[in-house]
Amino acid sequence: MRFFSDNAASVHPKVLDAIARVNQVDTAYDGDSLSRSLDTAFSELFECDVAALWVSTGTAANALGLASLCPPHGSIVCHSEAHIQIDECGAPEFYTHGAKLLLAPGEGAKLSPDAVRGVVGAIRKDVHQAQPHAVSITNATEYGLTYSENDVRAIGDAARELGLRFHMDGARFANAVASTGATPADLTWKSGVDVLSFGFVKNGGMSAEALIFFDPSLAEATRYRRKRGGHLLSKGRYLAAQILAMLEDGLWLDNARAANEGANALGQAAGTRLVYPVQANEVFVRMTSQEAARLRAQGFDFYDWAPGEIRLVISWDQPKHEVSALAAAISGL
Amino acid sequence: MRFFSDNAASVHPKVLDAIARVNQVDTAYDGDSLSRSLDTAFSELFECDVAALWVSTGTAANALGLASLCPPHGSIVCHSEAHIQIDECGAPEFYTHGAKLLLAPGEGAKLSPDAVRGVVGAIRKDVHQAQPHAVSITNATEYGLTYSENDVRAIGDAARELGLRFHMDGARFANAVASTGATPADLTWKSGVDVLSFGFVKNGGMSAEALIFFDPSLAEATRYRRKRGGHLLSKGRYLAAQILAMLEDGLWLDNARAANEGANALGQAAGTRLVYPVQANEVFVRMTSQEAARLRAQGFDFYDWAPGEIRLVISWDQPKHEVSALAAAISGL
Amino acid sequence: MRFFSDNAASVHPKVLDAIARVNQVDTAYDGDSLSRSLDTAFSELFECDVAALWVSTGTAANALGLASLCPPHGSIVCHSEAHIQIDECGAPEFYTHGAKLLLAPGEGAKLSPDAVRGVVGAIRKDVHQAQPHAVSITNATEYGLTYSENDVRAIGDAARELGLRFHMDGARFANAVASTGATPADLTWKSGVDVLSFGFVKNGGMSAEALIFFDPSLAEATRYRRKRGGHLLSKGRYLAAQILAMLEDGLWLDNARAANEGANALGQAAGTRLVYPVQANEVFVRMTSQEAARLRAQGFDFYDWAPGEIRLVISWDQPKHEVSALAAAISGL
Amino acid sequence: MRFFSDNAASVHPKVLDAIARVNQVDTAYDGDSLSRSLDTAFSELFECDVAALWVSTGTAANALGLASLCPPHGSIVCHSEAHIQIDECGAPEFYTHGAKLLLAPGEGAKLSPDAVRGVVGAIRKDVHQAQPHAVSITNATEYGLTYSENDVRAIGDAARELGLRFHMDGARFANAVASTGATPADLTWKSGVDVLSFGFVKNGGMSAEALIFFDPSLAEATRYRRKRGGHLLSKGRYLAAQILAMLEDGLWLDNARAANEGANALGQAAGTRLVYPVQANEVFVRMTSQEAARLRAQGFDFYDWAPGEIRLVISWDQPKHEVSALAAAISGL
Repeated sequence: MRFFSDNAASVHPKVLDAIARVNQVDTAYDGDSLSRSLDTAFSELFECDVAALWVSTGTAANALGLASLCPPHGSIVCHSEAHIQIDECGAPEFYTHGAKLLLAPGEGAKLSPDAVRGVVGAIRKDVHQAQPHAVSITNATEYGLTYSENDVRAIGDAARELGLRFHMDGARFANAVASTGATPADLTWKSGVDVLSFGFVKNGGMSAEALIFFDPSLAEATRYRRKRGGHLLSKGRYLAAQILAMLEDGLWLDNARAANEGANALGQAAGTRLVYPVQANEVFVRMTSQEAARLRAQGFDFYDWAPGEIRLVISWDQPKHEVSALAAAISGL
Repeated sequence: MRFFSDNAASVHPKVLDAIARVNQVDTAYDGDSLSRSLDTAFSELFECDVAALWVSTGTAANALGLASLCPPHGSIVCHSEAHIQIDECGAPEFYTHGAKLLLAPGEGAKLSPDAVRGVVGAIRKDVHQAQPHAVSITNATEYGLTYSENDVRAIGDAARELGLRFHMDGARFANAVASTGATPADLTWKSGVDVLSFGFVKNGGMSAEALIFFDPSLAEATRYRRKRGGHLLSKGRYLAAQILAMLEDGLWLDNARAANEGANALGQAAGTRLVYPVQANEVFVRMTSQEAARLRAQGFDFYDWAPGEIRLVISWDQPKHEVSALAAAISGL
Repeated sequence: MRFFSDNAASVHPKVLDAIARVNQVDTAYDGDSLSRSLDTAFSELFECDVAALWVSTGTAANALGLASLCPPHGSIVCHSEAHIQIDECGAPEFYTHGAKLLLAPGEGAKLSPDAVRGVVGAIRKDVHQAQPHAVSITNATEYGLTYSENDVRAIGDAARELGLRFHMDGARFANAVASTGATPADLTWKSGVDVLSFGFVKNGGMSAEALIFFDPSLAEATRYRRKRGGHLLSKGRYLAAQILAMLEDGLWLDNARAANEGANALGQAAGTRLVYPVQANEVFVRMTSQEAARLRAQGFDFYDWAPGEIRLVISWDQPKHEVSALAAAISGL
Repeated sequence: MRFFSDNAASVHPKVLDAIARVNQVDTAYDGDSLSRSLDTAFSELFECDVAALWVSTGTAANALGLASLCPPHGSIVCHSEAHIQIDECGAPEFYTHGAKLLLAPGEGAKLSPDAVRGVVGAIRKDVHQAQPHAVSITNATEYGLTYSENDVRAIGDAARELGLRFHMDGARFANAVASTGATPADLTWKSGVDVLSFGFVKNGGMSAEALIFFDPSLAEATRYRRKRGGHLLSKGRYLAAQILAMLEDGLWLDNARAANEGANALGQAAGTRLVYPVQANEVFVRMTSQEAARLRAQGFDFYDWAPGEIRLVISWDQPKHEVSALAAAISGL
């Protein structure tokens, strides 16, 4: 029973079916009808005109998105534990050609407007310092916290005030939407977001994420950067098909809700052991290494996160009985 | 009846089946058993110890491969019509951080050792010029010519003499093997090749190419570069499965032979109209625009390549009746 | 008697005097009054509002200038023998983060509008090719030819028509102005030039070139790029002083005229041996290696340029008797 | 009376004289006899074989030095207030092509071995994180503290243990040598330093710093990178002459001693107001803004550094009476 990461989950059968359905010759790259329909599909979902590009990984989505917002001599404000800082081996630096990440603090990897202002305020306005051009947040955060519509707008307001563009790493955007109940529009452009990395792979997809530009003009250079980064697959229809299958009938939301529900069940079992409130599909639980060993002995696999702390990630396809069993085991510690 | 490009072909059913078969939770990234078996699978195929990394595109494979061979201040000899120069929007420059491509001439996009020596000989050995560090050839070439084992070795010998590492863009390596009858080993490391981009997507795959390092130590930094380029997919098993399905029972060779046979049939029909001998799965045919229009009126689609010249690409899945019909139509011009 | 290169000449005494005169504590970087006066000084010279930045080398000026005009995923049209392609070890690729140089032909390293159109016309308008964003010419060229006002305007018109920005490498701009008799304004912005690398080092300076932006808004990002490139010297007043000394009383033009006159004298002596007409301070002369050896035996040093061809460069400080002696020696061959 | 920065000081007359003495035609770039003598001159000073390259700025020296030690996908440990992090507008990221700086804490911008170990220990050994390849310290630090020979060796030992190369930003290396009494060799390679940015500009030079490679093989690629960065001046002899003049008869040490003495005098006057002990030529003094205003009213100029804290920098050419006057003024507060 694996609670390591939603990264490792299976692909939803409807996604596989969609791949099989497009298995005939078609126009290469993103010239097929499915790829060309993405702008429309996401414009409907977000209730405004957007440009939507498929890419294979969240890291590529983030790095391309950031590169569209920040020049090589600029800097980007993010949390010190943001995925773009910690887990992408310098992909933002690679795609931006060396822009700096300015690290801000915040409980649970969540940025506050004041944290953003603090980091930006420390930068002198002269050529000796890489000037801030953008801010990036992760929703839900790397610790499973969500930014509500109000939270996002507060960052968005600070960004506009500080002259920053605004990127959201939405590797678990679906979980954030499911959890907050906000509309996709409310959680993004209506609250100031310029570019969204919309994740599908953790949530039932196989190899397709969407990079959403709420200012479609930003997408133009990105089309070249995507090719130049080796991310313009020749058989793009198999990526577009995945994404469209996820959007159809709200599969993306259903999957996220299922994962969130599992997390909530574990959170209730963990009670006061919780390090952070459970707002998405990740649960951080305080326990001794002996306790962790007892869980593992019962067949549960997960990562130790910090001394006296484990991380549990619930996937869209996590069997309910696994969740129930783990909840019971935690309660029984 | 589409003869535009093998890029747009369907995915072989065995590849789709393989994808479906790995559809359960497994270790993320390239930690699953299939990804970890690639080194062994390719070491057997190439009869030597290799390191093999999956990536999603040929452009990524080429750019990562070149970056492993040439520093930012160096240069790479290639044909002036090489894919890496013409059709990758500067991906080699991006991944090498600005190395220069030094362009050599040659009929049918095929490099000769003398062309390589000529380009390198024109570079002064001082810091004002980007010194050559590598040579790259495409086998089969962008015009459907193949390098035989002897051809490759001649380039390899020149490379060693000139102090260059040797990359092969094998987007259509399968077609070259099928056409020349040489072993994969003979066409590569036994003839001096250091790194091979081994293409599967044009040949029945969906979204997986293999980057083969005959000097496995070169792969180490590339693992970081792959992540940093956003090319380390979290569900890598779906890529490894594609490649392993292509290798199983020689599917990659069968598919390439089918495509080559179609090209040969068209080549025979084209006769003296041929611009280049047909050695792989591309056929370049001289004809007037009126003649091209007549073919199109009969339902055949293809690209005009140059004034008075069309390009026909035959895919692994090209129906035989389409080939026969086109051959007859060409004969009837 | 050295005719190798104007690169190696001495520094004009007035330039050294100017350096000595600023030798007291002053504001660091480019905050001193001399550095701050450059915009005005060059705006007067060019009869329009410009932004002027000092840098230490022509390579830095060219690379920073090009980076202000072309994104990493773009390309720049230049002559195949342009200094930026041949002699800067990839500095343009470094500062542009990997933009491609598209090479055009032309006698004497001189571009024609048709050559530019030919190169640009060969680029497909799709994401697979690095789209042209700029054109760069060298005036005077690497072979001592000049672009007249009409020549520059013809390139400028082509650039505007093709959507390209226009850079001029003016390492020997002074020689071009002296030779053509055009005003600095006529040879640049009035004919479409956006950015000029204005060389002083070959012409009597020590370590200061000027990068001139006829569209001052382009200078803003360049100020950061200059710092980031390590080119913002802390004691910038010693660079500004050099440039202002060169501008004072037309010293830059006087020096260039002296060099050009020497070249003309050698050109007349060379007569039909000339490879190119003499229009600046370089003279390319056909002669056998035996003839070259006879000149060297008489104490004249210079580079062999190509089989049967030598290059003579006349510096601003070349003693007249050296020129006369060489002219006589050439006539006497 | 300016106590802003040693960056803004005058050039020592012997340096200007040396420039004047080389004012005749000579071989261009670094082919002149002075430039070619630098290796020998520094090898003597450091009592071992070194390769020494001139560059124009400390930022260029640092960035080139770091690029010789760390690949684009790697990271470099430095203090969170290091000049390379705070005041070079991303030059290290530019020259390394996007390597990350990992920031460590430490009083007075001084790194401890434990701080280095702490930062490195937090990095997982997998491809998702940019692996540490180098550590960089500034001696004297940005707050005027010095690393003694033992301090340097402790970092050097930690570096070797952690598999890191070791760079020293010696913008004020002369001040550190003068202050600690250690030999140049003891403070560098004998204690594990691989590359040193040896500053002269703050200490009486005009526009020449030296980049010293204690492993001369590291210098080879740097020669290309220097050219590619636009830092290979054509009249390099004027830079070499500055450096050699500084080395002659220990002028570099005399100048540093003079500056340090001034700082010591101010430090004694400041007494318990000192934020850090005075070990080089910078003095940080606690005072109210009213007190600072009283100093300014007496003709002393300096920067406010933090609330309730000013920074005083004493230059090599600071008149003694200015120092005495300021000391008296501080005592009289």
